[in-house]
Amino acid sequence: MSADLLAGLIADLPEGMVVTDPAVTEGYRQDRAFDPSAGKPLAVVRPRRTEEVQTVLRWASAHSVPVVTRGAGSGLSGGATAVDNGIVLSTEKMRDITVDPVTRTAVCQPGLFNAEVKKAVAEHGLWYPPDPSSYEICSIGGNIATNAGGLCCVKYGVTTDYVLGMQVVLADGTAVRLGGPRLKDVAGLSLTKLFVGSEGTLGVITEVTLRLLPAQNALSVVVASFASVEQAIDAVLGVTARLRPAMLEFMDSVAINAVEDTLRMDLDRDAAAMLVAGSDERGRAGSQDAKVIAEVFAENGAKEVFSTDDPDEGEAFVAARRFCIPAVEAKGSLLLEDVGVPLPALGHLVTGIARIAEERELMISVIAHAGDGNTHPLLVFDPNDAAMAERAQLAYGEIMDLAIDLGGTITGEHGVGRLKLPWLEDYLGPDVMDLNRRIKQALDPGGILNPGSGI
Amino acid sequence: MSADLLAGLIADLPEGMVVTDPAVTEGYRQDRAFDPSAGKPLAVVRPRRTEEVQTVLRWASAHSVPVVTRGAGSGLSGGATAVDNGIVLSTEKMRDITVDPVTRTAVCQPGLFNAEVKKAVAEHGLWYPPDPSSYEICSIGGNIATNAGGLCCVKYGVTTDYVLGMQVVLADGTAVRLGGPRLKDVAGLSLTKLFVGSEGTLGVITEVTLRLLPAQNALSVVVASFASVEQAIDAVLGVTARLRPAMLEFMDSVAINAVEDTLRMDLDRDAAAMLVAGSDERGRAGSQDAKVIAEVFAENGAKEVFSTDDPDEGEAFVAARRFCIPAVEAKGSLLLEDVGVPLPALGHLVTGIARIAEERELMISVIAHAGDGNTHPLLVFDPNDAAMAERAQLAYGEIMDLAIDLGGTITGEHGVGRLKLPWLEDYLGPDVMDLNRRIKQALDPGGILNPGSGI
Repeated sequence: MSADLLAGLIADLPEGMVVTDPAVTEGYRQDRAFDPSAGKPLAVVRPRRTEEVQTVLRWASAHSVPVVTRGAGSGLSGGATAVDNGIVLSTEKMRDITVDPVTRTAVCQPGLFNAEVKKAVAEHGLWYPPDPSSYEICSIGGNIATNAGGLCCVKYGVTTDYVLGMQVVLADGTAVRLGGPRLKDVAGLSLTKLFVGSEGTLGVITEVTLRLLPAQNALSVVVASFASVEQAIDAVLGVTARLRPAMLEFMDSVAINAVEDTLRMDLDRDAAAMLVAGSDERGRAGSQDAKVIAEVFAENGAKEVFSTDDPDEGEAFVAARRFCIPAVEAKGSLLLEDVGVPLPALGHLVTGIARIAEERELMISVIAHAGDGNTHPLLVFDPNDAAMAERAQLAYGEIMDLAIDLGGTITGEHGVGRLKLPWLEDYLGPDVMDLNRRIKQALDPGGILNPGSGI
Repeated sequence: MSADLLAGLIADLPEGMVVTDPAVTEGYRQDRAFDPSAGKPLAVVRPRRTEEVQTVLRWASAHSVPVVTRGAGSGLSGGATAVDNGIVLSTEKMRDITVDPVTRTAVCQPGLFNAEVKKAVAEHGLWYPPDPSSYEICSIGGNIATNAGGLCCVKYGVTTDYVLGMQVVLADGTAVRLGGPRLKDVAGLSLTKLFVGSEGTLGVITEVTLRLLPAQNALSVVVASFASVEQAIDAVLGVTARLRPAMLEFMDSVAINAVEDTLRMDLDRDAAAMLVAGSDERGRAGSQDAKVIAEVFAENGAKEVFSTDDPDEGEAFVAARRFCIPAVEAKGSLLLEDVGVPLPALGHLVTGIARIAEERELMISVIAHAGDGNTHPLLVFDPNDAAMAERAQLAYGEIMDLAIDLGGTITGEHGVGRLKLPWLEDYLGPDVMDLNRRIKQALDPGGILNPGSGI
């Protein structure tokens, strides 16, 4: 039956675009959330053009076939997990980009990696700020689908702040253009912004118009280690009360040691926490900020404080922070959390997570975009130890419950996907959940777009 | 009949909150678009609390009574124009604000003026950037309803970039909280952003959480006059290609002379255009930018270039720019346009408007937030000259048609309201218009919220 069903789609698309070979499709079942309940798709479709995406969605709507849109498959919440008898629509071959230096915008297709967008615009002296740690392996389309964040958000905001327009294919195959290369446009509802962060549940984004900034100034970086987590958190709040850093990152003792195990850069293995902060203010202002940051760190009991205006030296510490997840992953399988709280609650969140780790007898490493209150607790477990894996699942939920109790969110930048969907209504409450569903229903009445994920 | 209908509402709200005295309600029929077709409302309701707004909307839904939400009544597109047999819900008495300097956020009610928000946060050394020229008389709720812009947007973005969360009362009276004091939160659809710019068509915003920045650095201001509009526009593009100004404003000859008539500040009355630009980069970087701006102005044939790092001196020129609308208004009644184009099309827009002015035998003064391509053509007419008033109406539409042809928008920052609604579908196209309507239908199935306006 599925072969009959697919025949019509295969006939309507260029040869080879619809892939059914299990050896290939197997690689498209999961993203980096590795959801064990991932389904087996009918096919993987890899379009190059908006018209081809329209063909897929027209066909899918006509036959009520679920469509899961997939960028680079680097998602951490299972937002690109395949469903049984559905299509995985991979944007990996949609890779065009054009940069307009006069309007400081770029128009690009979703399949480019974030790093490729950064590189293409840098050739024009421009900068696309959002910088997820995975920027070298995550797609710009996925970034927009999840409203991705990163390290620079504490100063520069998140993905949505850089999306001026897009082309979207709706569930029924209609392609629409929303917004465009205008910083100001208030005609009609803010639909561009509605689609940012919609995790493939409202349509398939086939082109985006990005707002760019002039090239970032060199970072002045300040690194410090602390004997206690509390001191480090106090230092974070001390910095944000004094100035606006371009980066303010937190690593706990587990992360410090895991990174040091591999990178051997002489990090302070005895420290309870480490902060990596930076200022990109122009000229001497960056160094002035760095001096203030170093003072605040020292006032809050830092063991060691190291400052540098040298870009390579600074980048080494930023790279160390970015390397935390792979480094901790070397200790076991990970459940990767993404809870965020208003800044004053950050200390309560971190100590609460330590309590959960103790109660559940788990190693939980906390790394954080501390300056904006967004933490990534990394729950380490042995997948062959069923009891431990279950404890990790329980702790994963408890951390979200804790964040909600502290006025925080269950996901700051990774998205809800399939893994966090069971907690979404607890967080939003029934009325906001209903509002989400009404919009989903209005835009995708057949429910074919990423069912079971996001909303 | 209307008295019976209202009796239930009056009984459910504090005494005096429902106003039916025509001497009072008359003042709530129009906003500053002065729409002559404004209706006569049943009553004006001036709630103080979210619960009271809920009472109004529950009652209005039950009786299918239209509700027009009104901030300070400073809107220029007729978004707060009263409708016959409807309620005007004025937010003017909702004026609380609390500032959290640690998270750099403010939670405030919609009725505060933009200037009052700026002042309240400035007491904590913080800054709320969006700065419509009307900032002393426009409400923050209205700013959010229209996604208002201003002079600083060329560098700092628009209102939506500063809205982190809100409380909204939906058409049926349900109150929901969306977002909150977290820079990053991707749980559920981006509903906060959907409500920004929704012009009272989806719900009534009763509280907002605003993102704040550290106090702005002093502006280094550069002012120049040009013998031709073309030179001035070339200078605008020259500046944006070189650096990122914090302000880049354009005034044409009519505006220059109208301002000079009142303010007597020795502006160049013979100039065809004047630019007012500024940099707020820290320390010497601001002066360095100002030097580059002055060079670019000179390279593009500026007649006179004046630079100043003195805040008061600079502010005088910014105030002159802000004074353009009242100054030109002294010449006659105004139809106030708000079209925007991608920056490379700015010259075509300005010359096209001059052609329309000539063809329609009208005085049209063009002022512009030139750095982001957003212009405010001011169409001057004598309301007692019916033929001229009609020509002004025709030109008003022709300017929007021109903007659409140039890849621009019919409204950059004022909103669609009632005045621009006839052009909305031309701009959006039928598919995007349908998308707008589907969301409106999902959230306000009875169509009671601001009917005939916005969507």
